[in-house]
Amino acid sequence: MSMDNAPRETPERRAYYDRLEPQDLSALWTKFSTLVTKQPKSRATAHLWRYAAVRDLLMEAGELITAKEAERRVLILENPGLPGDGRVTSSLYAGLQLVLPGEIAPAHRHTQTALRFVMEGEGAHTAVDGEKTVMKPGDFVITPNWAWHDHGNDSDRPMIWMDGLDIPLVNFLDASFAEGYGADEYPRARPAGDNLARFGQGMLPIGWEAGDTRNSPVFSYPYERSRETLETLRGTGEWDACHGIKMRYVNPANGDWAMPTMGACLQLLPRGFETAAYRSTDATVFTATEGRGRSTIGETVLEWGPRDIFVAPSWAPVRHEADEDAVLFSFSDRPVQEKLGLWREDRGNA
Amino acid sequence: MSMDNAPRETPERRAYYDRLEPQDLSALWTKFSTLVTKQPKSRATAHLWRYAAVRDLLMEAGELITAKEAERRVLILENPGLPGDGRVTSSLYAGLQLVLPGEIAPAHRHTQTALRFVMEGEGAHTAVDGEKTVMKPGDFVITPNWAWHDHGNDSDRPMIWMDGLDIPLVNFLDASFAEGYGADEYPRARPAGDNLARFGQGMLPIGWEAGDTRNSPVFSYPYERSRETLETLRGTGEWDACHGIKMRYVNPANGDWAMPTMGACLQLLPRGFETAAYRSTDATVFTATEGRGRSTIGETVLEWGPRDIFVAPSWAPVRHEADEDAVLFSFSDRPVQEKLGLWREDRGNA
Amino acid sequence: MSMDNAPRETPERRAYYDRLEPQDLSALWTKFSTLVTKQPKSRATAHLWRYAAVRDLLMEAGELITAKEAERRVLILENPGLPGDGRVTSSLYAGLQLVLPGEIAPAHRHTQTALRFVMEGEGAHTAVDGEKTVMKPGDFVITPNWAWHDHGNDSDRPMIWMDGLDIPLVNFLDASFAEGYGADEYPRARPAGDNLARFGQGMLPIGWEAGDTRNSPVFSYPYERSRETLETLRGTGEWDACHGIKMRYVNPANGDWAMPTMGACLQLLPRGFETAAYRSTDATVFTATEGRGRSTIGETVLEWGPRDIFVAPSWAPVRHEADEDAVLFSFSDRPVQEKLGLWREDRGNA
Amino acid sequence: MSMDNAPRETPERRAYYDRLEPQDLSALWTKFSTLVTKQPKSRATAHLWRYAAVRDLLMEAGELITAKEAERRVLILENPGLPGDGRVTSSLYAGLQLVLPGEIAPAHRHTQTALRFVMEGEGAHTAVDGEKTVMKPGDFVITPNWAWHDHGNDSDRPMIWMDGLDIPLVNFLDASFAEGYGADEYPRARPAGDNLARFGQGMLPIGWEAGDTRNSPVFSYPYERSRETLETLRGTGEWDACHGIKMRYVNPANGDWAMPTMGACLQLLPRGFETAAYRSTDATVFTATEGRGRSTIGETVLEWGPRDIFVAPSWAPVRHEADEDAVLFSFSDRPVQEKLGLWREDRGNA
Repeated sequence: MSMDNAPRETPERRAYYDRLEPQDLSALWTKFSTLVTKQPKSRATAHLWRYAAVRDLLMEAGELITAKEAERRVLILENPGLPGDGRVTSSLYAGLQLVLPGEIAPAHRHTQTALRFVMEGEGAHTAVDGEKTVMKPGDFVITPNWAWHDHGNDSDRPMIWMDGLDIPLVNFLDASFAEGYGADEYPRARPAGDNLARFGQGMLPIGWEAGDTRNSPVFSYPYERSRETLETLRGTGEWDACHGIKMRYVNPANGDWAMPTMGACLQLLPRGFETAAYRSTDATVFTATEGRGRSTIGETVLEWGPRDIFVAPSWAPVRHEADEDAVLFSFSDRPVQEKLGLWREDRGNA
Repeated sequence: MSMDNAPRETPERRAYYDRLEPQDLSALWTKFSTLVTKQPKSRATAHLWRYAAVRDLLMEAGELITAKEAERRVLILENPGLPGDGRVTSSLYAGLQLVLPGEIAPAHRHTQTALRFVMEGEGAHTAVDGEKTVMKPGDFVITPNWAWHDHGNDSDRPMIWMDGLDIPLVNFLDASFAEGYGADEYPRARPAGDNLARFGQGMLPIGWEAGDTRNSPVFSYPYERSRETLETLRGTGEWDACHGIKMRYVNPANGDWAMPTMGACLQLLPRGFETAAYRSTDATVFTATEGRGRSTIGETVLEWGPRDIFVAPSWAPVRHEADEDAVLFSFSDRPVQEKLGLWREDRGNA
Repeated sequence: MSMDNAPRETPERRAYYDRLEPQDLSALWTKFSTLVTKQPKSRATAHLWRYAAVRDLLMEAGELITAKEAERRVLILENPGLPGDGRVTSSLYAGLQLVLPGEIAPAHRHTQTALRFVMEGEGAHTAVDGEKTVMKPGDFVITPNWAWHDHGNDSDRPMIWMDGLDIPLVNFLDASFAEGYGADEYPRARPAGDNLARFGQGMLPIGWEAGDTRNSPVFSYPYERSRETLETLRGTGEWDACHGIKMRYVNPANGDWAMPTMGACLQLLPRGFETAAYRSTDATVFTATEGRGRSTIGETVLEWGPRDIFVAPSWAPVRHEADEDAVLFSFSDRPVQEKLGLWREDRGNA
Repeated sequence: MSMDNAPRETPERRAYYDRLEPQDLSALWTKFSTLVTKQPKSRATAHLWRYAAVRDLLMEAGELITAKEAERRVLILENPGLPGDGRVTSSLYAGLQLVLPGEIAPAHRHTQTALRFVMEGEGAHTAVDGEKTVMKPGDFVITPNWAWHDHGNDSDRPMIWMDGLDIPLVNFLDASFAEGYGADEYPRARPAGDNLARFGQGMLPIGWEAGDTRNSPVFSYPYERSRETLETLRGTGEWDACHGIKMRYVNPANGDWAMPTMGACLQLLPRGFETAAYRSTDATVFTATEGRGRSTIGETVLEWGPRDIFVAPSWAPVRHEADEDAVLFSFSDRPVQEKLGLWREDRGNA
C-alpha cells in the first residue's frame, strides 16, 4: 500500500522520473511516505549537555572575544541529529550566553523572539525597550519580536543564562528582520520592575491595549514568585501523573502563552516522584534549576543535575524521576502547533 | 559590526571552534549574520511552470501508474532554489494532480491540510468525511487536517487540479500523522452540497459549534460565486493599487482564513491594470484562471496565461500587469505568519 | 428558608425598616426572594398580534401622519405584561413600520441597533451609511449601532416591515445617543448590493478589518437565499427535535450573531412536524413568513398564519406544530445573554 | 423635528391613540424622543452614603436578625433616583453586609455574580466552591455566576464588606436562577489561597481550561498586592489626567475584566491631585479605602472620607480632588457595555 511504500520502480518509470527533474518537477508517489509520515519521524535526537562542560568552554570564550565584538557571546547547543544548523530542535534554537563583569551586549532588535533563563550570577540586566530588569538565577525573561534589547553586567561576577529563540522557525518562514540600534544602550525609559507591577499583579492599566507582537507585556517572571507558586500547589496533593506540578508562563493580556512562538513552563517533581510516560509533538528543551534525577526519552536515559540541559524530540515518550525535589524549566514550540491545530499529546494510560 | 559581519577569525579562535563541534556546540558569533538576517534571504526563487508542459508529463504519468497505486498521482512543483524537498516555497508544497475517468484516489487522512484548485475537467469529486463535492474549473476545495478524503472521477474526461499543502511546515514541526482508511471510499454521509448550504450562505445552524481543526466547515467554494463577486466589486471602482480587486476565502465560523496554515485568495486584474510594487513575507503561489499578463518579481519577468503557475519568494517586490481581464488564484502561509506576529508587508508608496 | 420566604416581620423589624428608607437604604432580607428568584419570573406574557388587524391600524396611521413627520411611522407591539414601556420582551422592542409610495423616512443614527424583517411590499429601500438595499418580503436587514440610515419607497405599493430594536436594553444601560442627519438622505456611497458581494459570499476583502460596532458588515440577507438554504437542509433528514431546521444569521467577520445585542434566526417546520417542548432564557419574538400552525407557550395556545407575530417569554416551554410547511423568523437577546454567561436552555428529553 | 419633539397632537390622532392601547399597540412617534434620547438621561442621581451612618444601622440589624435567618444580612444602597428597586445604578446593586463573630451565611448559588470589597474587620472568610479565602480590608473577592459560596466569621470582631451584584441586570434579562445548598457550608475542597497561587502568579496550570462562566478563576485579589502595585506605578510619573493611577482587576485566563458583567478598578489619587472632567456611559460606584477628598459629579459636590460610598450616574462629568493620598475602589457595568459595543467615554480635552 502506497502510504507505507513507494510503488515499484520500473525502467519506464525510472526514465520518466529522470525527465522530471530538469523541469523542476518530481513524482509525489516516489516520496509520499517520506513527505507524509504515519507518525512524526524527527531527525532530532535526545541529548544532554553537561552544564559544567559547556560553562568551561564559555568562560574560555570570555577570553577569546568580547560580548560587544560578538554582538552576543553565546555557545549554541546543536542537536546531534541536526548538525550545523544552529538548532536544538527542528524549530528552535538554544544557547548559553556569557556576560562578564563590566561588559555590554549592545542594543539591537529582530523579529526573532528570545527567552532567557538565568543559570548563574546575579546583578546583570536585560533592558527591553529601555526598561531594565535585574536578573537572578531561575528568572525567566523575554525579549519580544522587534523589541529593542541590550544586556549588561554591573556585578562583579560572570553572568550566564540560557537563550531560547525561534530562529529556525523565523528562517523557515523567511521572515527575519534585524537592526542594530547604533549605540550600546537603548535610552532608558521606565524604572526597573515597572512591567511586573503594571501588568503582572492581577491588574491591567485602565484603557491599556495590547500591541501587535502577541508577546506578554510582562517581560520578567522572577523565580522567587514562580518557585513559591509551585511549592504552594505541592500542598494540594493533586500532582499530574505525567507532569507533577507543571505551570506555564502566561501573557496576562490574553491568558495565552507568554510568547506566540515558544511556550515555557516550570514544573516541580517532588523527591521520589516518577512520571508516567508522556509524549507530545512539541520537541522540548529542559533544564534543571534544582535537584537531580533522570529522564528516559525513548530508549535514552539521561541523568541530570542542576543546570544541565537536555532535549526530547517530538513524539518520543518521556519519563522523569526525581531523586531529590527537582524543578525543571522547559520550552518548546507548542504555542505554534496549537495555533495551527497541529499539537497532539499522548498521555498513555495516565 | 557584528550584525553585518562575523568577527575576525584568528588561529586561537579557529582552534577553539574546532573543539566545539564534537561537543555539539557552535559559536553564535560565527554565524549570527546568517541566522538573524537584516531582511528575509530566501533560497527560493521566482519561477513559472507552463501548464501545457506539466500537463503533457502528467498525462504521460496517467499511463505509467494508476491513481490508486500512486495513492495520489501528482507531479510536485519544486522550487528551483529548494531542489529535492518537495517544496514550492519554504513552507508549502504544490503539485498538479490527475484523476482519469473511472479512477479513484483512495480514502486517507493526515494532519497536513490540503487545498485543491481545479484546473481542468468537470465532474470528478472530492469527498470530505463522506460528503462529496463535484468539482469544476476554478473551484476552491479544502480537505482539512485529519479529515478523511477520497477523490473519484465519474466523468469521461481527465480531471486535473492544483494541490497546495502545508507538508514542509508540518514536517518542520515534526507533527505528521497519517492513516489509510482501508477502503476506496469513506462511507457517504451528507448529500453533495450540504456543507455550502449549511455553513456558507450567511447562516449557521443554531447550536452548532466549530471543531478543533480551525479549518472552515465549508470545504467547497464554487468558482461561479467567487468570480461573480469579483465582477460585482469591479463596478465600485475602488481598486487596490497593489492588488486590484483581491478577496480572501474565509472560514464562516470565525472570519479567519479558510485554513489555519494556508491563506488563499482570488483577485481580478482588469484589462490594462498594472499594480504598484508590493512585497510581503509570505512567499506566494499564483495561477491564472483567466487572462494573460506578466508579473515582475524582483528582477524576473514572468509571462503568464491561463493555468500557468508561478511563485514569488518572500519579500521580493511583485508587480502584475494584465493584458486582458485576468483572474489570479493564490495561496501562501500568511495565516501562519499572522498568528505568530511575523507577517509584514511593504506597499511602497501605494 | 430565606431563599423562598422573607423572614418573619416583627414590630421591631417593621420600625427598623421604616427608618431605612429616608436614608436610601433597604433590608435585603425583606426582598431577597424577589430579587434573586429560583427561576426566571418574567412579567412578560405570551401574546400574538394578528397581522391583518395591525395592518388596518397602520394603514389608518398612513392618513394621520407622514413618515417624515413621524420620523418613523411605526406601531409598537407592547407586551401585555409590560404595558406602556414600548417593550415586546423585557429587553427588546418590536413594531410594524409603514412607508407609503413616494415617502421618505429621514436619515438619522442612534446607538440602538435595529433589524428589519419585510412583511409586505417590494421596492422600498433602506440605506445604511449611504448604501441602498432594495427590500423584498422575508429579507432580513440590519442597521447597526451608530450607522446612518434612511428609508424610502420608490414603488407604487405600501411597504410594511417589522422593526426589532434593543431600545429597552440601551435605555436600561443608560447608553442612548442619537442624532438626525439634517437631510432626508445620507449621501449615496456604494452601489446597491455591494455589501453582500463584498462580505457575504464566502470571501472578505484582503486587508479589511472589522470596525467597532461588532455588527455584521453584511446588512441585507435576502430571503431568497435563506429560504433556499432551509430547503436544501430539509433534504438531509436531520431535523432538530426542538427546532426543526433552524439557522442563525451570522456576522461573516467573526461567525458571531449578525448583531451583538439581538440574535435572529430563520427556521423551517415541515408540514406535520411537531417540536418537542423547549425553553430558554431569551424571550423570543416570532413571525411566520409562510404556512400555518400553532405554538403552545406555557399554557397558552397561539394559532398563527402568515405574518402574524407572537412572543414567548423567558423560560416558558414552547412547542410548535406546523399544519403546512412553515417558516418562522425569530429574534431575541440571546447574544447578550451568551456574552454575559447567562444564557440557558432546557431541551427536556429531546 | 421629531427627534426632539413628538408630532403635534390633533383630536383625530388622540382618538386614534386611544384605540391602540386595547390592541397592545402604541404609536412610536408619540414617544420616540423618550425611547431614543440624544444623550443618556438616567433617572439615577449622584449620591453619597456616609459609612458611619450605614454602619450604625447595620450593627443594629445585627441584633434584629441573624445572618443565617437573613440568608445574607445586607443593607441595600438604593439610588435616590431609582427608589424601591434595590438598585444603586440602573443595572447594578450595592449593599453593605455584616457577619458577626461566630456567624455563618449559608451556602447557596445563583446566576447573579457578586463582588465583595472588604470595609472593616479581618478574619472572616468567603468560600467559593469549597475553597476558603480569608478577608482583610481592601481585599477584592468575587463569587462567580453559579458558584457555591458561603461566608463565616471565625474572628472576634464584626466583619463588614460592600457587596456589588448584577441583580438588576439579571432580572432585566429574566435570567435568574438560584438554589440553596441545604447545609451551612459547601464541602471544603482546596486549601485557602490555592486559587491565587494556581491562577494569579503569572502562570496557569498546563492543560487547564477556563469554564463557561467567563469569570476569573482567581476569586480573591489581596489589597496588599494591589495597593503596592499602585504605589510602584506612582513612581513612574505617568498619571492619567482623568484617572490618576487607575488599574482594572483582570481575569488571568483571558485578560478581560475579572467578571463579565461588572468591571472593578482600584485607583490612586496622589495628595493634591485633581482630575480633569471625565464622563462615560457606565454609571459607577466608588468607595474610598484611604484618604479624603471630594468628587464633583455634574452639579453635585460630594465630600468623602474612608469607606464612604458614592455613585456617579451615566454620562455625568466627574472630577476628583484628593486632599490626602487617596485610593478609590470602583465598579460599574462597563464590561457589559463594551461587549455590546455600547460603551462610550468623553475625556474632555484631557
